[in-house]
Amino acid sequence: MAPTLRVVPLGGLGEIGKNMLALEVGEDIVVIDAGVMFPEEDMLGVDLVIPDISYLLQRKEKVRGILITHGHEDHTGALPYVLNRLPTPVYAVGLAHGLIGLKLKEHGLLSQVRLHKVEPGQPVRLGRLKAEFFPVCHSIPDAMGLVVETPLGLVFHTGDFKIDHTPVHGGPTDFSILASYARRGIFLMFSDSTYAETPGYTPSERVLNESLDHIIGEAPGRVMVATFASLISRVQQVLDAAAKHKRKVAVVGRSMVENVQLALKMGYLKPKHGVLQPWAQIRNLPPHQVVIVTTGTQGEPTSALVRIANRDHREIEVIPGDTIVMSASPIPGNETVISRTIDNLCRQGARVLYHRNALVHVHGHAAQEELKLMLRLMRPKYFVPVHGEYRHLVAHAQLAVQMGVAPENAFVLENGDVLELTPEGGRKGERIPCGHIYVDGLRLWEPESVVLRDRHLLSRDGVVVAVVTVDKNTGRLVRPPELVSSGFADPHEAQDLLSQASRALQEALDSRRAIPTEWGYLSAKAKEVLEEFLYQKTRRRPMVLPVAITV
Amino acid sequence: MAPTLRVVPLGGLGEIGKNMLALEVGEDIVVIDAGVMFPEEDMLGVDLVIPDISYLLQRKEKVRGILITHGHEDHTGALPYVLNRLPTPVYAVGLAHGLIGLKLKEHGLLSQVRLHKVEPGQPVRLGRLKAEFFPVCHSIPDAMGLVVETPLGLVFHTGDFKIDHTPVHGGPTDFSILASYARRGIFLMFSDSTYAETPGYTPSERVLNESLDHIIGEAPGRVMVATFASLISRVQQVLDAAAKHKRKVAVVGRSMVENVQLALKMGYLKPKHGVLQPWAQIRNLPPHQVVIVTTGTQGEPTSALVRIANRDHREIEVIPGDTIVMSASPIPGNETVISRTIDNLCRQGARVLYHRNALVHVHGHAAQEELKLMLRLMRPKYFVPVHGEYRHLVAHAQLAVQMGVAPENAFVLENGDVLELTPEGGRKGERIPCGHIYVDGLRLWEPESVVLRDRHLLSRDGVVVAVVTVDKNTGRLVRPPELVSSGFADPHEAQDLLSQASRALQEALDSRRAIPTEWGYLSAKAKEVLEEFLYQKTRRRPMVLPVAITV
Repeated sequence: MAPTLRVVPLGGLGEIGKNMLALEVGEDIVVIDAGVMFPEEDMLGVDLVIPDISYLLQRKEKVRGILITHGHEDHTGALPYVLNRLPTPVYAVGLAHGLIGLKLKEHGLLSQVRLHKVEPGQPVRLGRLKAEFFPVCHSIPDAMGLVVETPLGLVFHTGDFKIDHTPVHGGPTDFSILASYARRGIFLMFSDSTYAETPGYTPSERVLNESLDHIIGEAPGRVMVATFASLISRVQQVLDAAAKHKRKVAVVGRSMVENVQLALKMGYLKPKHGVLQPWAQIRNLPPHQVVIVTTGTQGEPTSALVRIANRDHREIEVIPGDTIVMSASPIPGNETVISRTIDNLCRQGARVLYHRNALVHVHGHAAQEELKLMLRLMRPKYFVPVHGEYRHLVAHAQLAVQMGVAPENAFVLENGDVLELTPEGGRKGERIPCGHIYVDGLRLWEPESVVLRDRHLLSRDGVVVAVVTVDKNTGRLVRPPELVSSGFADPHEAQDLLSQASRALQEALDSRRAIPTEWGYLSAKAKEVLEEFLYQKTRRRPMVLPVAITV
Repeated sequence: MAPTLRVVPLGGLGEIGKNMLALEVGEDIVVIDAGVMFPEEDMLGVDLVIPDISYLLQRKEKVRGILITHGHEDHTGALPYVLNRLPTPVYAVGLAHGLIGLKLKEHGLLSQVRLHKVEPGQPVRLGRLKAEFFPVCHSIPDAMGLVVETPLGLVFHTGDFKIDHTPVHGGPTDFSILASYARRGIFLMFSDSTYAETPGYTPSERVLNESLDHIIGEAPGRVMVATFASLISRVQQVLDAAAKHKRKVAVVGRSMVENVQLALKMGYLKPKHGVLQPWAQIRNLPPHQVVIVTTGTQGEPTSALVRIANRDHREIEVIPGDTIVMSASPIPGNETVISRTIDNLCRQGARVLYHRNALVHVHGHAAQEELKLMLRLMRPKYFVPVHGEYRHLVAHAQLAVQMGVAPENAFVLENGDVLELTPEGGRKGERIPCGHIYVDGLRLWEPESVVLRDRHLLSRDGVVVAVVTVDKNTGRLVRPPELVSSGFADPHEAQDLLSQASRALQEALDSRRAIPTEWGYLSAKAKEVLEEFLYQKTRRRPMVLPVAITV
C-alpha cells in the first residue's frame, strides 16, 4: 500500500508573508521556505512575525532539510529563528544562497548551519525523497520552483513566479522543463496565488526599459529611483538608462548598498564602466547628470527615501526639479505611509512618479491567464493554492477546477490544516497548532499573550499608577495615595485630576469598615474607585495599576 | 480700491477629510463646511480629528455663518465641536440639513444653534457677502456646490462632485446653471481634487443598476449588500433590483437604519410596496428571497458586516452560499481591515464581491476629464484645488493650467496657508496655526501633546513602574524597590526579571555615597538603572515610571 503524503502549511496560507510548508511522507519531512511577515499596525512593539514550528519540533528526527525557493524575506526571514531550534540542512540556489549566508552571519549562526549551495536540476536527497530546483521568472534573480519525488508521484511547486518571455534578468520561462515534469505526471501541485484575482497577464519586466529610459532621459534635474533592495534587475535597468543618457548612478541606503555589492560580486549586476559611483563622487555634479538608487517604496521609516521625504537625511535633500520614481507597488497595509511619503516629497518640489500616475513598476507574480497556463501545462491530480490571503486561494482553486482539476481534488488550506493525500483521494486531517509567533527583542510571544493585550490597553488611554501605602498592623493608609500617569492627561490637566482622584481613593479606603490589608482587596478596590472616578471626569479609561506598600 | 479676499483653508487641503475653508473679505468671514477626519492608526486612543479653528475664534465677530455643501461626515462632523465654541448660523440644503439636525440633537445642541434649511438658488445673506447653493451629483442626495458674491467677483466652489448625466438620484449635472455663473465671470474657483490623478471619466451611478440586477438575480442564496449609510441612491438600487427578483430587503445596523428612516421620511427612498421589511419578518424566508442592506465596507469594527465576519453578530451569521457585496471602494488607510473582513467572510463560505473582482461600486468624485470640463466651463481667474492629499492638489493645479488658468493664478494651498487675492494678483501671506485637534473622550488634544507621545512609548514595549520607598531622614531605602509592569513581559518572565531588576536598582541606590533624598535625583537614577538593566536583559525598552515614597 502506498504511504500517505501529508501537506502541512505552517505559514503563507490565508495571509501575506511568512511562507513555510512541510511535506511529510512516511519517515521523511521536507520543508519548503521559512519566511517572515512584517508586523501589522496592531501588533504593538512586535519586530517580526515568524511561523509556529511546533509541528516540526515534535518530529525533529524526521526533518531532512529546508528548501528555499528564492531570497525574499517572506521566504527566508525566519531561518535564523527556525535553525536555532531545529538544526537541519538548508538548500538554496545562487543569490538566495548568498543572501541567506549574510543573514546567518548577522545572527552569528553561519558556522553552525549546514547551508548548501545547489544548482537548478541538481538532485537533492532528503531521506527517501529527492528534490530538484528549476528556474522561474520572479522579481529577484535565481528564483526557483521545485519538484519533489515521492513514492506517490511528483510534487510540483511553482515558487513565486510569473511567465515572462522577455525578462531583464535570467532566461525566459522554460516550458520544456515544465513539460518534462508534466510528462512524468504531477501528483500534487502548489502554485502562487498572490494575483489569482487579477485577470489577464502580468506585463514583462522588459516594458519598464522604455519607461525608465523616457523618465531618465527627459528629467530636467536629478532622478531618484526607489525600489526593493532585492529587485536587482530593476537596478540594472536604471544603470542602463542612466548610461544611455550620460548620467552617473549612486546607490544610497544600507540594504540597497549591501544588495548591490553582493549582486556585483556574484555577477548579477553589470554596470557600464564608470556609471556606478559613490555618492560622494557625484553629489556635486550638475543635477541632470545624477541618478540615485535607493529603498523606501513601502514607507519604511528608516529608509533613505523616507528620511529624505522627512528632511531628515544626513546627506541628501530634495532639490526642486527632482524626479522621484517609486518603482514598486504598495504591499497591502503600507498604503498610508507611502502616501504620506509621496506627499512630503511633492511638498519639497519633487515630481513623484508612482504606480497611479506612471508606468514605473511591474510586479513578479502571475495573473489569471498565466496561472491557467501553468495549470493546463502541468495537469496535476491534486492542487493546493499557496501564497495568498484566503480569498486569493479560493479564487485560485476555482481557476484550477476550470482547468480540469477535479473539484474534490482542489484544496483550499490554511496554516494549520493538515492535508492527507493518497492515490485514492485526499482529506483534511486534524488541525495542528500553527499561528503567529511574534519576535520582540530577544523574546518570542504568542499572539494571545497578555503582553500584547496590555499594550493595546496602554495605547488607548494610557496608564495611571496608584501607590497605596498602608500600615502593616492597622491596615490604615499612612499617607494619601500617590498617583502618577502617562499617556492619560497632559501635565496641566493631570495635576488637578490626579489629586482629586487621590482624595476620592483615600476617602473610599478610609471609609472601609473592616480593615483588611489583604492586597487583593486593596488592589481591586483601588482599581474600581479610580476607574469609575476617572471615567466620569474624562470619558477615558486608562489602565489603572495599583501598587501596595505596607510599612 | 477693491478689498482683499483672503482664503483660509482650515482643513481638507493636503489630507483626507475634515474639510473646512474660510473666505474673508473686509469685515466678513464665511465658512464652508466643518468636517472631521477619522484617526489614523498611529493616533492612539483618539476618537476623531477636527480642524483647529483658532483663526476663527480670534475673529468671532466677523464670522457670518457656516455653509454646508452636503451631509458627509468629512464635511459636517466637526459642527458640534465648532459650534460649541463659535456660535454662528449654519446653512444647509435638504438631507444635509436633516442629518445635521440629528447630529446636533445627539450632542444636545439643537436648541442653541441657528440651523437654517435653505433651497438651491435661494440667496443667503452673510454680512456684505451673498451666497447661494446649486445642485451637483455626488454620492449622497442633495449634494451642493456654491457661489459667493463678493466685491471682487464671484467665488465658485464645486463641492464634492462628479459629472453624471444619468444619476440614480436627483437630476443630472445642470450645465445651464454653471454657464450662467460662468457668464458673470468667476473670480476664484475651488474644485474637488480627490481623483485629480485619475485619467478619464468616473462612470455614472446608473452602471450599477445592471450589475446589481445580475448579482441579485443570479445569487443562489441570500444577498448582503454593504455600503455607506449615506449612499441612499445605492440603497434605492438594491431595493429596485430586489423587487424585480421577488426578494425582500431588511436593513441592519444602527447607522444604516437611521439613515434609511430619515431618507424614507424625507422622500429620498421609495421602496416598492412590501419590499422593505424588518429583519425579524424575513429572517425565516428561504435564502433566495432575502436581501440584507448594511454597513461595514470600511472594516469598521462595530459595523454589522464586520461583526458577521467575526461570527460576533447577535442575529445574523453567514450561511454558505451567501453572496456578499462590498459596494464601496476602500478609503485609504482601511485596506488591511477590509481585506481581513473579506477573508473572514470567505472562510465561512460566502462569495464576496468587491471592487477587485466585480463591478460593485462607482465613487462620487470627478476624474480628470470631468475636472477639465468644469475648468473649461467656468474659466476662473484664480484657481485653488481643494479636497485631497498634497499630490492630488498639485495634479489638479496642473490640469487648471492646461485649461488656461495663468500659472501664477493657480495656488496649491495647505491647511494654514492664507491666500490673499486682489484683482491685480495673489500671494500667500503668513501661515496661521492650523493643525489637527484630537477629540479624546471629553478632551481636545493638540497632536504634539505629550499624551500621544507617551501612548506611543507605552504601546511599544509597555511600562515598568518602580516604587522606591526611602526614609525621609536618612535617605536610605527602607525596603526593596517594588516593581510592577504591564505590556512588557509575560507573567512567567516578569516575576524573575523584575525581582532581578529590583535587586539591581537596590544595589545602585544603596551604593550612593551621598544620600540625597531629592526626588529628581532618585527618579533619574532609578530610570537610568532600570532602562539599562532591562534593555540588556530583553532588548526591549519599556517606559520606566519611578514613584518615590518617603516615610
